[in-house]
Amino acid sequence: MAHIPTIGITLGDPNGIGPEVVAKALLGPEIRRLARFWIIAEGWDKLPLVASNQWHTMELTEDVLTTLRGTTTTLRSWQAPPSQGPRSPGPTAASGRAAVESVLKAIELAVNGEIDAIVTAPISKEAIRMAGYPWPGHTEILAEGTGTKHPVMTMVGGGLIVALVTTHVSMRDLPKRITKEKVLATIRIANEGLKRYWGIRKPRIAVCGLNPHAGEAGLFGQEEIREILPAIRKARKEGIQCTGPLPADVVYYQAHRRLYDGVVAMYHDQANIPVKMLGFESGVNVTLGLPIIRTSPDHGTAYDIAWKGVADPGSMIAAIRLAVQMAKRNG
Amino acid sequence: MAHIPTIGITLGDPNGIGPEVVAKALLGPEIRRLARFWIIAEGWDKLPLVASNQWHTMELTEDVLTTLRGTTTTLRSWQAPPSQGPRSPGPTAASGRAAVESVLKAIELAVNGEIDAIVTAPISKEAIRMAGYPWPGHTEILAEGTGTKHPVMTMVGGGLIVALVTTHVSMRDLPKRITKEKVLATIRIANEGLKRYWGIRKPRIAVCGLNPHAGEAGLFGQEEIREILPAIRKARKEGIQCTGPLPADVVYYQAHRRLYDGVVAMYHDQANIPVKMLGFESGVNVTLGLPIIRTSPDHGTAYDIAWKGVADPGSMIAAIRLAVQMAKRNG
Repeated sequence: MAHIPTIGITLGDPNGIGPEVVAKALLGPEIRRLARFWIIAEGWDKLPLVASNQWHTMELTEDVLTTLRGTTTTLRSWQAPPSQGPRSPGPTAASGRAAVESVLKAIELAVNGEIDAIVTAPISKEAIRMAGYPWPGHTEILAEGTGTKHPVMTMVGGGLIVALVTTHVSMRDLPKRITKEKVLATIRIANEGLKRYWGIRKPRIAVCGLNPHAGEAGLFGQEEIREILPAIRKARKEGIQCTGPLPADVVYYQAHRRLYDGVVAMYHDQANIPVKMLGFESGVNVTLGLPIIRTSPDHGTAYDIAWKGVADPGSMIAAIRLAVQMAKRNG
Repeated sequence: MAHIPTIGITLGDPNGIGPEVVAKALLGPEIRRLARFWIIAEGWDKLPLVASNQWHTMELTEDVLTTLRGTTTTLRSWQAPPSQGPRSPGPTAASGRAAVESVLKAIELAVNGEIDAIVTAPISKEAIRMAGYPWPGHTEILAEGTGTKHPVMTMVGGGLIVALVTTHVSMRDLPKRITKEKVLATIRIANEGLKRYWGIRKPRIAVCGLNPHAGEAGLFGQEEIREILPAIRKARKEGIQCTGPLPADVVYYQAHRRLYDGVVAMYHDQANIPVKMLGFESGVNVTLGLPIIRTSPDHGTAYDIAWKGVADPGSMIAAIRLAVQMAKRNG
């Protein structure tokens, strides 16, 4: 019998669409068959805001919470939120606290080997800040919680696997963040991840340039010559099959046609535009370079549509499926 | 009887794939039926390099050239270049001169009303420089030749129409090039172009942010707040139906689903990644804001595959079709 992994799922910010998309995803029997699930709702029972939510009080009693922390069996009694739910209160200190406590608990469970992978529902930068934590988002919590120096945000969707050298940085600060060290670390981690979690023996990796036409031999920027190319040369010496720096507008078309197994992108939109274009409802965010497996849907808390029963669980379902696949390959 | 436009086509750099893709495109009778064509090969007869090219000497005799400058009738005698052609010599001063002279001639013909639109085959920045001209590319030649202050490079393909605020600029210089004036000028020209050449009465225009998540309320960059939003507000006051600044990774997915008629992008790859992803062989480059119509295939001279008979005419065919459509709407 194949190995059945245990997947830990956090519910994210209680005021966002996280709880709904997790519930909707796990209501599908074909998803529940894939793994054992551990719903992590640490801190939820101390949440007055959520306790005042009609759907929540109806379903998430203390008894349900205790059970939720164990297995999915209780989830059969979950209902999709009513279409006439209460208005969403948006980010609060309480929702930020519950969101972060759940992630910290998930990390603890994963590091101790009690779960094989973490799937995280969306949290809010603003709510985390209101709750007084120092981290801007999941990646930083995961990096600190596991002692990881180079966590690599990786977008997976529409047939593309794209690892990012930088993430949430302004375009003004971007060029100086493109260093040989960071490009090389990202190439190495992408290579390792493609081998370990996707089972590709010798991944073919395309490395994007930063500038238009990958700088056109220094005509529009020097980062390709000074930082990216030396990193690629070093990686190739280490036996990694990588090519570039290539113009980003050419790379994705080629990667989509399977000329490459993975792409290393220099910045957020360079990775997210093609992945969202090809798989908006099924994009998954994976953090590579951690000692644990972590996937996440490729959307935010969407406070404006929370608790209305209209959220699309497609990306959460894709994140769960990918976590299961990664855990099985790793197992 | 519908108006039959006259389309002027330049052959681009004689050492690139321009002549081949023009010939291949015009060999299709369904294309030749769309318009009258005027092949502009100004300066070609003074080209020793090309004269030594077997395919060229065979077909482009002085007699043929003279005829080519008039109508397409002679094109029926063109052949696709032999698969064993002479090696491509790459950019030269002579090829740059022929390329630019043809564009200047095309502008003259269009301004005088002898042709209804220009389709330009690719030229080489390097060859133009070797020939001693001051312009980096087509757009600048066209702007100077027609006295246009704000030419707007616009990518059309895969159902998207994307107007660019900046084009060939390094990421280091990019943020300071995003000014309220340039964003506003681009929105106005995109709006005008969508009305005039696509027949959309009140175009819905999405304006991208510069930074990830469109800056997330100033968290990753100030350009959205300081430059882009004021430009959008001004444009809306003028009655233009535009929205933004929106995260670029969300905009294209929505535009592709027809939530917008056009997109204003801040930089080269922000426009080119999605357009090439959706329509690599059929992307067209349009210059809006000129007093004349100009389209171009969305690829370069491709010296490495020139004169081998392997170039794909898809983008040239799309450029010709679009020029015909624009000329008809304009007419």
